[in-house]
This record gives sequence, structure tokens and C-alpha cells, in this order.
Amino acid sequence: MDKILLSLFIIFVSAKLTGEIFERLSLPALVGEIVAGMVIGSYFPALLRPQNVYEVIAEFGVVILLFAVGLETPVKQLIKVGLTAALVAILGIIFPFILGFILMVYLGYPLTQAIFLGVSLVATSVGITARVLSDLGYIHRKESQIILGAAVVDDILGLLILAFVTGVQDGHLSLVKLGVLIIEVFIFVGVLLYFGTRFTKRHGDLMDKLRISEAPLVIAIASTLGLAALAGYIGMAAIVGAFLAGVIFAEVNEVYGLSEQIVPIYEVFVPFFFVIIGSKVQISQFADINIVMLTLAVTVIAIITKIVGGGLATLNLGRKISLRVGIGMIPRGEVGIIVALLGLTLKVIPDSLYSVIIMMSIITTLITPSLIKLTFKEKTT
Amino acid sequence: MDKILLSLFIIFVSAKLTGEIFERLSLPALVGEIVAGMVIGSYFPALLRPQNVYEVIAEFGVVILLFAVGLETPVKQLIKVGLTAALVAILGIIFPFILGFILMVYLGYPLTQAIFLGVSLVATSVGITARVLSDLGYIHRKESQIILGAAVVDDILGLLILAFVTGVQDGHLSLVKLGVLIIEVFIFVGVLLYFGTRFTKRHGDLMDKLRISEAPLVIAIASTLGLAALAGYIGMAAIVGAFLAGVIFAEVNEVYGLSEQIVPIYEVFVPFFFVIIGSKVQISQFADINIVMLTLAVTVIAIITKIVGGGLATLNLGRKISLRVGIGMIPRGEVGIIVALLGLTLKVIPDSLYSVIIMMSIITTLITPSLIKLTFKEKTT
Repeated sequence: MDKILLSLFIIFVSAKLTGEIFERLSLPALVGEIVAGMVIGSYFPALLRPQNVYEVIAEFGVVILLFAVGLETPVKQLIKVGLTAALVAILGIIFPFILGFILMVYLGYPLTQAIFLGVSLVATSVGITARVLSDLGYIHRKESQIILGAAVVDDILGLLILAFVTGVQDGHLSLVKLGVLIIEVFIFVGVLLYFGTRFTKRHGDLMDKLRISEAPLVIAIASTLGLAALAGYIGMAAIVGAFLAGVIFAEVNEVYGLSEQIVPIYEVFVPFFFVIIGSKVQISQFADINIVMLTLAVTVIAIITKIVGGGLATLNLGRKISLRVGIGMIPRGEVGIIVALLGLTLKVIPDSLYSVIIMMSIITTLITPSLIKLTFKEKTT
Repeated sequence: MDKILLSLFIIFVSAKLTGEIFERLSLPALVGEIVAGMVIGSYFPALLRPQNVYEVIAEFGVVILLFAVGLETPVKQLIKVGLTAALVAILGIIFPFILGFILMVYLGYPLTQAIFLGVSLVATSVGITARVLSDLGYIHRKESQIILGAAVVDDILGLLILAFVTGVQDGHLSLVKLGVLIIEVFIFVGVLLYFGTRFTKRHGDLMDKLRISEAPLVIAIASTLGLAALAGYIGMAAIVGAFLAGVIFAEVNEVYGLSEQIVPIYEVFVPFFFVIIGSKVQISQFADINIVMLTLAVTVIAIITKIVGGGLATLNLGRKISLRVGIGMIPRGEVGIIVALLGLTLKVIPDSLYSVIIMMSIITTLITPSLIKLTFKEKTT
């Protein structure tokens, strides 16, 4: 047990230290945490034994991460997001998915792997975009609001697509099975979003009647674990359930300060998720020039398709704004990474493809701050 | 993984639900959590597999618990505690230890087991006492202040004794080894308390210079994990290190609001510790009349020795106050339970003795609120 405490200490400190260094270089802390994981996984893999313990810690971390994302996504904001944002999201999903899929099929990869790679290119990381725009003081511009709205929509669509993909991961894309799954997903998501949010909104004050300490947080965490498990059992990704739990509790977030209360748990456990993510990237993969070339090709597709998709949807607002919207949508983060991890865990994609997806996420995340600085300077609105 | 999420959900909800029921019966929630654990361990043990995962979660929970206890124990309060409180603590340690030890030796148990049982009787649970006194509005009375001061001192002495016991657990009580251990413990505790608290007090604002979010909490948690691991490596109980980390960060607790930030982590993880504690009690043990008798004997000793020890130390304050002080010191909690768990893990004590100690903790905790209500009514100061 002392050994595990020491490992937890070393991993936690490495993640936070690298995060601190990256922050000082104006780079996202989460990329630092992934890099720490790559180093640990490649050179000190014994720190991550026994594996099942760290997988549970990482799973708890990602469940908390998605709950926190959901908590910042109240349903009314989802409804308010204009047609433009929805269009940006939809085109920004279709283009990367199709081009990623075509590239993989063209290179001779099997269909399932091509689908997984396509899905991993879909979702913009709303956290990273928002953080950069807010740090630079551009957060209240029209294009920023469109980006934020679109990022939220495409996170949700990305999770929905992920739910489908998880359900059909065994490769048997029978129409009946797909149909059942689509109905399941819509019922699960629909029932939770409609009745769940109404329930918390109307009867959330029931939690005041409980005697245990921090009852609202306790109920929220319990619901998150429960819905995550339920989503898993009906064949979706567990994190879809965690995200929906967040959306449901977003209704009472302000009253009970759940966002603030989740922060300590988030700061302690989410880094373990990103470290584990990084630890599964095998640096040796990149000794193969084909893998390097594939990474570059996938990354270029990831960048261009978002610029084109986001740009086309907002062309009526002028070229400058449409370029900015496209650029703001570039960074991929949690959702793409989670898709990759799921593919790896289900043994649907090989180690090499996993590494390609993680590197694509890292590169798109790293270049966006500079691109935003370059293109957002001139004030238009 | 979905199975583990479901187990976590069921365990968490059971613990919180039982906690809620106990609170409504004016009983401590932690006893409810232990009871939930007893039920799970006896009837649904599959929920707690794989075992190593739950042991790590419980270990993290108890490390957080001891950190939180330390956080409420600033060094200056330790110094302020008068001679009376120190005397109450010391007599309240000597009496239970000696009588518990004698009982065990008389019954023919081996020396090591007798020592472990003695140590498990030593420490009053400051949390339970404080909670009851505060709920009843008696917290500012002189006798309450003495009880709180004494409970803090005997928690620390209990942990010190535990550190010794852990070091000599293999049964070879060689004088040289004991001497080395005493020196190690004093250096470890002394250095940390003296230099550690000075460092956080004087240079705590270095944490403001970090860019990562919630830097003070992150540093505190990292230190807690590090000191827990270090304590383990030099032969002490890991929780002694976690407690000292709490005492060190108590110096900057008010500035950074660490007590509030630790609450969410505490509320999520500490219950898993108490559930695991309970799950190791085998209800079948109590089919043996000898075990039931031993439990009763140990519990009676636990109660009487604290009343006599605490009472003798405060006789000069009058009989009523001296009785109240003694009664306030009765409840045993975390520390005794941790001693029992340690003994079980190290295979120094058998399952039966573990169950006896846990039941003693539960009974002393359950009877104290009523005894306090009975004896504290009349106002004396």
C-alpha cells in the first residue's frame, strides 16, 4: 500500500509540475499532463501497476470531467444557441468525419477503424477554446459566442455518435441493431434531458431536507455514477451518462454551487485520466515513418475540415469572421481522446492508430492559441 | 468497468442512505456507513471485488480523513491546551491501555495481540465528541473545552503509539529496534511540526505564484500523499504522515480555505473507508458466545477507564465536571478502527479480535450522546 501511495504521489506531482510548466509557456495544462503520462508510460511503466487500480482512478476522473462539462451546459443555453452555431457544429462534424473516414479507407484500413478515426476527429474541445478566448479577452465577440455555442452542440453530437459507435463496435452493422440502438439512445438522452432537468428544477429543494453533509453534491455524484453505469449497461459509453447527469444538475448549479464544489475532486482526479491517456501512447510507434506521415495527414485533415466546415456555415458574416469561427473550432480534446481510448480498450483500433489520434489532439490544441492570436487581432464587431 | 461503476454507485448510495437514516435517529453518520459496510461485506461481498481497487480507494479515503483532522489541529492550539487537558489525555491513555492489555493477557492472548487491543482502546474520537457537544449547545463550557483539548492530544499520542506499534509489529520487541524507532518517530514528527509549520507560515504565499488552478489545495494533497508514503517507508503508519501534513497546512488553512475545499473530496471518499471497515466485520463471529462476552468486557473497560482516567485528572474541578469530562472522552472512532485494520492487514490480530474492536468503537460511539444528554443538563459554569 505504501508503494501505491508513493506512485500516486509521483504521478500526481509529475502531472501538476508539467501542467505548471506548460501553463507558463502559455500552453494548456492538460497537454502537459498527457506529456507527463507519455514519459511515465514509456520510461517508468511500473508506476502504473496494478493496472486495474489506475484504470478505475482514470475512469472516475473522466466521469467527473464529463459531469463538470455537463454542469456548464444548461439545457436552456443549448436551446438558445442559434441556427448559425448549430450549422457550424453540424458542418464541422460532417467534414472531418467524412474526410477522415475516406483517408483511412483509401489507406486500406478496415471499416471499423476508419469509423473510429472519423469519430475521433469530430468534437471540438470547448474547454480549450473557451480558455484561450477568455485569456485573450475576446470571449464576448460575436464569433466567440458562435464558437462556444457550436462547441457545445458538437460535444453533444460527438457523444451521441460515440454512443452509436460503442453500440456497433463489434463490426456487425446490422440495420436492426443500429435501429434499436438509435431508439435506445434517443429514449435515454431524451427522457433524461426532459424529465431529469424538470425534476431537478422543480424538486431540487428536496435535497435541502436531507441531514447528511453536502447533500446536493452527494446526490449529484451518486446520480453521475448511477447514470454512467446505466449508460454503460445499455450499450453506450459511460461518460455519456456522466455528461447527462451534469446537464441535469446544471439546473440547480447556481443554487447549490455545484461547480465550485466539484473543483477539488476535478483537480485531484482528472489529471490521472490525462496521465493514463498519455501513458498509452507508445513513443516507439513514432520511429515508424508511416505512422509519422499518417499523424501529419490526419492532423492536416483535422485542421482544414474544421476551418472549411465552420467557415462555410458562417460565410454570410464575412470572410474574417468565418475564418475565425473555423479556427476557433480546431482544437480537439477530451471527446476525441476518449473515443481513441475506447477504441483501444475494445481492441477495435491498434496501438498505432491510438497514438495517431492522441498526437492529433495534442497538435491541434497546441497550434490554436497562436492561430487565434494571429487572426482575432483586428476588431470587427 | 461498467460493473465497477455500478458497484461504486451501489456502495456510495448505501453508505449515504444509511448515514442519512442514522442522522435522523440522532446517531453518527459514520456508524451508519460502517453498518452499510457490514451488510455489504456479509451478504454482497462481490460488490467489493476486485479487492485491491477498493483497498486503494479506502486508503485514499483514510488519508484524506486524517489530513482533514490535522487541518483542524493548528500547532498553536496544541500548545495552548492547558495542563489539565494534557493530564486528561495521558491518564485517559494509560488506563485503557493497561486494563485492555491485562484483560487480554489474562485471557491467554499473545503479547502482540494484547498490545494491539490496548492501543485500539486509547484514542477518543474528537469528531464525534465535538459534534455531539456542538449539536446540544454545550461546546463553549469549560468541561467541553477540556474534552476537545484532551481529545486532540490523545489523537496525537494515539498516532504516536500506533507508529511505535507498527514498527514493532513483527513481535520482536528488541530494545535497540524500539530505540531506533522512537528516535525516528521523534525526528520525523519533530522536524515536520517544527520546520514544516514554519515553512508554510512564512513561505505559504509562494503558492500564489503558481499558475495551475487551485494550487494551494493541489500542493496540500501532494504533500499529504508524499508524507503518507514517507511515513510508511520509514516504518510508521501512513496516516501519521497524512495527519502531520494536515497540521502543517493548518497554518495557512484560513488564508486558502483548505478546510472548505477538502470537504467534497472528504464526502465522496471517506465513506468508502468506513464501508470497507464495516465489510471486514464478519457477523458470523458473533455466533460465538465467547466473542460476544469478550466484546462486552472490552467495551466496559473502554467506558470505565476513560471515565476514571478523565475523572481523576479533573477531580479538583468538582465531581460533576470530572464525570462529564470522563464521559465526553468515551467514544472511540477512527484511530482505534485504523489500529484494528492495521492489525488485521499485518495479520497480527485475528478476524475475531478485529470484529471485537470495531463493535467496541460502534457501541462507545452510540451510547455517548445519551450519556452526555443525561449528565450535562445542569449548568455549572
